[in-house]
Amino acid sequence: MSKRPLILVTNDDGITAPGVRALIEVMSELGEVVVVAPDSPQSGMGHAITINSTLFVEKVKVDKGSQKEYSCSGTPVDCVKLAVKEIIGRRPDLCVSGINHGANSSINVIYSGTMSAALEAGIEGIPAIGFSLCDYNWNANFEPAKIHAKTIVENVLEHGLPTGVVLNVNIPNLSKKEIKGIKVCRQAKANWKEEFDKRKNPQGRDYYWLTGKFVNLDDGEDTDEWALEHGYVSVVPVHFDLTAHHAMQHLNSWKLND
Amino acid sequence: MSKRPLILVTNDDGITAPGVRALIEVMSELGEVVVVAPDSPQSGMGHAITINSTLFVEKVKVDKGSQKEYSCSGTPVDCVKLAVKEIIGRRPDLCVSGINHGANSSINVIYSGTMSAALEAGIEGIPAIGFSLCDYNWNANFEPAKIHAKTIVENVLEHGLPTGVVLNVNIPNLSKKEIKGIKVCRQAKANWKEEFDKRKNPQGRDYYWLTGKFVNLDDGEDTDEWALEHGYVSVVPVHFDLTAHHAMQHLNSWKLND
Repeated sequence: MSKRPLILVTNDDGITAPGVRALIEVMSELGEVVVVAPDSPQSGMGHAITINSTLFVEKVKVDKGSQKEYSCSGTPVDCVKLAVKEIIGRRPDLCVSGINHGANSSINVIYSGTMSAALEAGIEGIPAIGFSLCDYNWNANFEPAKIHAKTIVENVLEHGLPTGVVLNVNIPNLSKKEIKGIKVCRQAKANWKEEFDKRKNPQGRDYYWLTGKFVNLDDGEDTDEWALEHGYVSVVPVHFDLTAHHAMQHLNSWKLND
Repeated sequence: MSKRPLILVTNDDGITAPGVRALIEVMSELGEVVVVAPDSPQSGMGHAITINSTLFVEKVKVDKGSQKEYSCSGTPVDCVKLAVKEIIGRRPDLCVSGINHGANSSINVIYSGTMSAALEAGIEGIPAIGFSLCDYNWNANFEPAKIHAKTIVENVLEHGLPTGVVLNVNIPNLSKKEIKGIKVCRQAKANWKEEFDKRKNPQGRDYYWLTGKFVNLDDGEDTDEWALEHGYVSVVPVHFDLTAHHAMQHLNSWKLND
């Protein structure tokens, strides 16, 4: 039996995206790779799962290399569930998701299919990391991102991750030389100011495209947004216990049972 | 100008679901109601947003009453974004989501369209609550849930909610008499053991249905699962800062910049 770690690779941009290809290349240097990724783009799918429809899986081979590859008709979270329970049939040693085309820093973690796949692996007890490059371009340069992804994965394979913690890694769109290092951060407070683009279809019916502007509301120097703006790779430990423990005392002062 | 609060109502089971109808009825006693809800079931959609497709909105009237109603082709999170930015055109005083047909306690908060709609409102700075009844039945009895939803909303309208905090309320499937009261809780540690139901389509191609068994891994008496099992309505304050602050020191001991 191989002693190399078994690494599950997934993403949300789809199995043919250059970002996941870059990640497969680096992970193949570190372990045995199985890819289970969506057959079409799934950006913005958050933690969606497919319960009102069927799921299809195809064994495919997109690139040369020793990795096994499967494309799946579902969401990134479906991919992780199917990989663990049906395709691999055992728990991988690590799950990596990405490299996403575009940032998933601050509040974007919650909309991100990339990060939801990593969180799902975390829920299953698998050490997991989501990687995103701050460049939406399909032809983005993933070379600097590959170097830092390798460093971070090596650390996770060596040290493990605390129970219930998953890493959200964002890499600035800079050259290898320009990147100053890796910073552990907290999620910046931010949101999107939506701007719906209202149009009429050929039948005269109104419809909308969702667009928006990202607004950073947080000038803390310990945030992921600060790190990225200042040339660092940001690493935010995230968890799926959403309890706002600090609010419990306040709520207990209410008259809920009178 | 009316001094009654403006209440946005949404859900993930679709605008005609009995659960949202029950919630509209109660909210109409407390304020001016605008409903913006999905035109079809959106269970399990998590925090998905529609970025690769168009959105349609229709002014509809499902039930009698003074509420304004709009059905939307998107996800629960899309509904909240459209409501605030396009349909209402101003910030509602409160957003309530549900009443969901089925529990959204413990880890289900992360898959839940009901709770993601409430979280999205919270991200926008709107006090928000998601309500779920622990009964998947379309013809469930929402009467006891209505009583407790009213009590909780009255408290939120009176006291407000701490910034960045949204409530996840689950109501046990019991009669009014059997429900012992309302308990502020933390999210129980739990997950799903997936069981994919593998079938062949008429063309002989394999496909899967996602099914699974819920596993509670947490016997704490301060959890939502404990409260529900013991006849209480559970109220978990949840937030959308996913940072695992407790893990930052551990990560800072790694050699990430050697």
